[in-house]
Amino acid sequence: MSRVRVAIVGGSGYTGGELIRLLLFHPLVEITQVASGSQAGHFVHSAHPNLRKISTLRFCYPDDLTSCDVLFLCLPHGVSSGEIERYRTLAPRVIDLSGDFRLRSPELYRRWYGHEHKAPALLSEAVYGLPELHRSELSEAALVSGTGCMATTSILGLAPLYRAGIVKQSIPLVLEAKVGSSAAGAKAGPASHHPDRSGAVRSFEPTGHRHTAELIQELGQPGSELQQLVAFSATAIELVRGILVTAHVFLNERLDERAIWRIYREAYQREPFIRLVKERNGVYRYPEPKILAGSNYCDVGFELDVEQQRVVVIAALDNLMKGAAGNGVQALNCMFGWDETLGLTFPGLHPV
Amino acid sequence: MSRVRVAIVGGSGYTGGELIRLLLFHPLVEITQVASGSQAGHFVHSAHPNLRKISTLRFCYPDDLTSCDVLFLCLPHGVSSGEIERYRTLAPRVIDLSGDFRLRSPELYRRWYGHEHKAPALLSEAVYGLPELHRSELSEAALVSGTGCMATTSILGLAPLYRAGIVKQSIPLVLEAKVGSSAAGAKAGPASHHPDRSGAVRSFEPTGHRHTAELIQELGQPGSELQQLVAFSATAIELVRGILVTAHVFLNERLDERAIWRIYREAYQREPFIRLVKERNGVYRYPEPKILAGSNYCDVGFELDVEQQRVVVIAALDNLMKGAAGNGVQALNCMFGWDETLGLTFPGLHPV
Amino acid sequence: MSRVRVAIVGGSGYTGGELIRLLLFHPLVEITQVASGSQAGHFVHSAHPNLRKISTLRFCYPDDLTSCDVLFLCLPHGVSSGEIERYRTLAPRVIDLSGDFRLRSPELYRRWYGHEHKAPALLSEAVYGLPELHRSELSEAALVSGTGCMATTSILGLAPLYRAGIVKQSIPLVLEAKVGSSAAGAKAGPASHHPDRSGAVRSFEPTGHRHTAELIQELGQPGSELQQLVAFSATAIELVRGILVTAHVFLNERLDERAIWRIYREAYQREPFIRLVKERNGVYRYPEPKILAGSNYCDVGFELDVEQQRVVVIAALDNLMKGAAGNGVQALNCMFGWDETLGLTFPGLHPV
Amino acid sequence: MSRVRVAIVGGSGYTGGELIRLLLFHPLVEITQVASGSQAGHFVHSAHPNLRKISTLRFCYPDDLTSCDVLFLCLPHGVSSGEIERYRTLAPRVIDLSGDFRLRSPELYRRWYGHEHKAPALLSEAVYGLPELHRSELSEAALVSGTGCMATTSILGLAPLYRAGIVKQSIPLVLEAKVGSSAAGAKAGPASHHPDRSGAVRSFEPTGHRHTAELIQELGQPGSELQQLVAFSATAIELVRGILVTAHVFLNERLDERAIWRIYREAYQREPFIRLVKERNGVYRYPEPKILAGSNYCDVGFELDVEQQRVVVIAALDNLMKGAAGNGVQALNCMFGWDETLGLTFPGLHPV
Repeated sequence: MSRVRVAIVGGSGYTGGELIRLLLFHPLVEITQVASGSQAGHFVHSAHPNLRKISTLRFCYPDDLTSCDVLFLCLPHGVSSGEIERYRTLAPRVIDLSGDFRLRSPELYRRWYGHEHKAPALLSEAVYGLPELHRSELSEAALVSGTGCMATTSILGLAPLYRAGIVKQSIPLVLEAKVGSSAAGAKAGPASHHPDRSGAVRSFEPTGHRHTAELIQELGQPGSELQQLVAFSATAIELVRGILVTAHVFLNERLDERAIWRIYREAYQREPFIRLVKERNGVYRYPEPKILAGSNYCDVGFELDVEQQRVVVIAALDNLMKGAAGNGVQALNCMFGWDETLGLTFPGLHPV
Repeated sequence: MSRVRVAIVGGSGYTGGELIRLLLFHPLVEITQVASGSQAGHFVHSAHPNLRKISTLRFCYPDDLTSCDVLFLCLPHGVSSGEIERYRTLAPRVIDLSGDFRLRSPELYRRWYGHEHKAPALLSEAVYGLPELHRSELSEAALVSGTGCMATTSILGLAPLYRAGIVKQSIPLVLEAKVGSSAAGAKAGPASHHPDRSGAVRSFEPTGHRHTAELIQELGQPGSELQQLVAFSATAIELVRGILVTAHVFLNERLDERAIWRIYREAYQREPFIRLVKERNGVYRYPEPKILAGSNYCDVGFELDVEQQRVVVIAALDNLMKGAAGNGVQALNCMFGWDETLGLTFPGLHPV
Repeated sequence: MSRVRVAIVGGSGYTGGELIRLLLFHPLVEITQVASGSQAGHFVHSAHPNLRKISTLRFCYPDDLTSCDVLFLCLPHGVSSGEIERYRTLAPRVIDLSGDFRLRSPELYRRWYGHEHKAPALLSEAVYGLPELHRSELSEAALVSGTGCMATTSILGLAPLYRAGIVKQSIPLVLEAKVGSSAAGAKAGPASHHPDRSGAVRSFEPTGHRHTAELIQELGQPGSELQQLVAFSATAIELVRGILVTAHVFLNERLDERAIWRIYREAYQREPFIRLVKERNGVYRYPEPKILAGSNYCDVGFELDVEQQRVVVIAALDNLMKGAAGNGVQALNCMFGWDETLGLTFPGLHPV
Repeated sequence: MSRVRVAIVGGSGYTGGELIRLLLFHPLVEITQVASGSQAGHFVHSAHPNLRKISTLRFCYPDDLTSCDVLFLCLPHGVSSGEIERYRTLAPRVIDLSGDFRLRSPELYRRWYGHEHKAPALLSEAVYGLPELHRSELSEAALVSGTGCMATTSILGLAPLYRAGIVKQSIPLVLEAKVGSSAAGAKAGPASHHPDRSGAVRSFEPTGHRHTAELIQELGQPGSELQQLVAFSATAIELVRGILVTAHVFLNERLDERAIWRIYREAYQREPFIRLVKERNGVYRYPEPKILAGSNYCDVGFELDVEQQRVVVIAALDNLMKGAAGNGVQALNCMFGWDETLGLTFPGLHPV
């Protein structure tokens, strides 16, 4: 079988590098080109030193891209929507890992991004590329969007409870994300300066974070947004890769732990990349992002306060993997009807 | 002026060591004895290597303690309440930094600690040793309790809003604490094993944490507990010292940022150890625990979502300082009518 | 082709866990049993949480081991040599990853380990399992030894210079290893307690480290030990996985950089797991262990001080991979004449 | 007694910030001005957030500096030597913490800095501001130089052995420094980008580091440089503050441990900021930089290999304190005949 020909735009960043790493080892894919405006001409391993001796690919100029089967866009937010028409002429299927095509509604986009979308007509066509929620739509999709790393963690942790209809929506949903430094990208600056960033526990955008919009869209009823107040805050912590989201959900009925377990098991028992983690003993009783580095798993756990009818949902993933490039490859696998785990079998390390 | 004679029980742990460090440099205090069952006979600096060349004190046996002016108890939770009578014969004033005398109500204690208190008659007498809330009671107190490190952070962050009567108590109060490894004490074990603990983002007691009880007591109306649902969870992160609490409070009226500012300023403008931190620029816009290591400050900031009538309160401190030993010394200063900053002027480091 | 049947003794430690992870994905191997005295009956993923959903293997008792094709021993130092006869009845080929069979000479063993070897007759038979130096011997070997993690790093960094005969042996060889916490194993204790171990830069065994003996054996002439003084010291640093060795070698002739390059290239150009790293630009100009976590690479670089006739050799690897389990799997591949990279293709992550 | 009036040039960097922190609490000093070209007009605490609520000082423009008693220069290397005449008109005593006036010999400067010195006539006048070696010269000095952070660690560790005449100088002196990220300064860039710098073990300038020149000058005989080959390399590790140097010294006679102890004790017993650290038990048996953060101590330890006649010297300090600003304040105290510990009593934290 001839390999599917994939090209990447914006390959010098962290998501691009992770995508290259995954696709180089994908048995059904061939990387044809990797474009980078800033690194054109250089070896891919000059930006991604883990790929030394693995690949002799070089970055090309974006203008030198030729046609391929699938085009991945790993551009900064706001860029791909302005150039999407050109990219779509290069490949019949485009996967955009930026934030540009995550929201279905131009209004929701405007509300959270603060400006008009540049290609609003395409929003309804694009598929939110989370296989666990949109698997069937992916098989036919020509334009697939990546998913926000903190949004993915939150949505995968909460979707089963929302779909089961047990969440009391008159009480606000409060979520707190703890996130590593790689989520802020490969560009150096004062906020990432090691003496200041190391050991930091830094609140950023305690209100108004854009990933909230994805939660509102994906946790709502099919066809309509969630009307519940969503209070999402994020804290950057000492960690390079990884996200842990803690969410407090109040229930509209009194359920015991087994009932919650059942809901999660039914939702996720066939999912290759979701693990339910809730143990009585040991130090890894709940999801722990550090053992997920490099893996495509999203680990989900919970603790129930029966009296308060409250579930604390705890979900973790690697922001560059299930939160970005890994999920993109899983979506690609869905789009072509392949085994979803192709190229994604690395289980993570312990200890690490 | 002759120095006040202070002894310490349980001096080989982290809180004990910090207390020794502070009192050795306190201009009005003399450390007479430091007891430790496990380290008796050894130099204090064998347990606390930062005190090499600073002090030639040795640990004594707890049974060898003689009378003094003030006795600090730095024992594990549940121990001091069983031996409190003996300790009170040694000193007219006792400061217990464990959790044993933090709650005024035996019922609240039983509910959160899961067993009967061993000296319930003393609970009403003990003073919750947070100067910002109980300064006047401290001057006469014979039995003072230390305060829980995460409780202190939360209470100092939230008290002004509760005292101002602007919190909508029909919505649960959700708090998430991020905490360093020193909060779990000096005893090694699998949970603190470096290859597993390093880089961890570990949920512990997502529901039911005992510090919740202190919030319920201290944020309630004078004389009665808070009836609002309190949802407190904590996550251990890569950090040795420090706590950052993120709390989501909904308001019962629509207020602007200046109104919230005014409430905080009025509450805290004369407090020597509380700083309001909320800046427009830079990377230290909100409280950051890492620059508080070794200092007695509690930094408090907030962000308002006007539309949602929600305040995200962010508070930070060093769990061994303002969250334990430093706050204990501040309480001591209050008890003797001294300048509260005596022995506590170290401002913290940057970078660190 | 039927898979080679492999069993593991001592599977609950870090090296054992890494070995299980690698062999579970090895295309020509089947894990038949994993023994652990302390964890027998428990799932393998209870000790190695990264293997959740990957394997439903359970630990068995060491006494329940049955015969297999290859037996890996991951026991504490000093244990396997006392039980080696029993283990050899279980499998025709044994790979011992402890320190027991690394040295060929009972005298060298006694000198560095401080006691007599328990099975000295086997020492001459065992093969030092470093494929880069002993590839041909591995194919027939019945007893293969793992290699010390810091010794492996040092030997791979230095062997080409020694083999080229350019090292001035009248000057002591000085090496300094920087090493992460996982090298000290899975057992918790005061030395690994996070508040003390975190951020540590801790000298240990500044003189007399046992890995020195492996250098003396492997850098010496075939059949005789190195007579040069070897000064090896090690410092534990903030890192879980990884070793970086800096070695200072003085040359017996004046060589330029190209000559040194040529020596390394000739020695290593066909080695699948050694990369020469020496770049003019960027932040990854020399070997960096953090991007090797989970990979089997040993990266080697150098800097020449022409005037001093001194080469600073810099070598890095993951102590649990090329320094232990990964190298063990590479040796296994050699023993069976397979492609050496089978099961070892993970390239490491960036950033991480 | 009126306070000595001190001004600082280059106050927005890390050394400048540390100096401000120390001098704000110094009982005999008044800070009159702090100049910063980039931060003029801003509060000092906007660059140094640990000083919030401590000081309302603002940065002034360098051109607005007026006369004072002592002027500290915290400028980038190469700057102060070009403007030194102007600065000397502002104050009768100048302390330059950059590298410009550390070397006495213009030739040595040219050899290691690669260009001519801009004010060579002043080199012989300047005093190398290390009180332990140049205390008496400091009392009269008008121009005092700061000391390189890694050089200070190395020199303090080794000077007693050199002064005792026991070092075999025919064998090269090999030193390896492990150093935190703050030593590279406050300016952000790719080398300090957290995802890349975090967890790094990064060789930099394995040969040719400028601090070598200070060792050659200060370990040599009075009036002449060391002729021994000095092989100094440095590795940046995961740490913000702190340096640990490991040095291998060969002896020209066979000495036992007590003899080495005696040499160190005689050299340092009256030094307020040097501690000999060499213990049989515990995890802090050798110098450990992490417990020195914020303190002015240099901890020195050693291990002897009697057979090899080799001493491994281990020395640690905080690069911003004893390696820069703290040592500068100690030098200031010497210059004015004050107690050397004024303003420098903070003992460091444990745990941290």
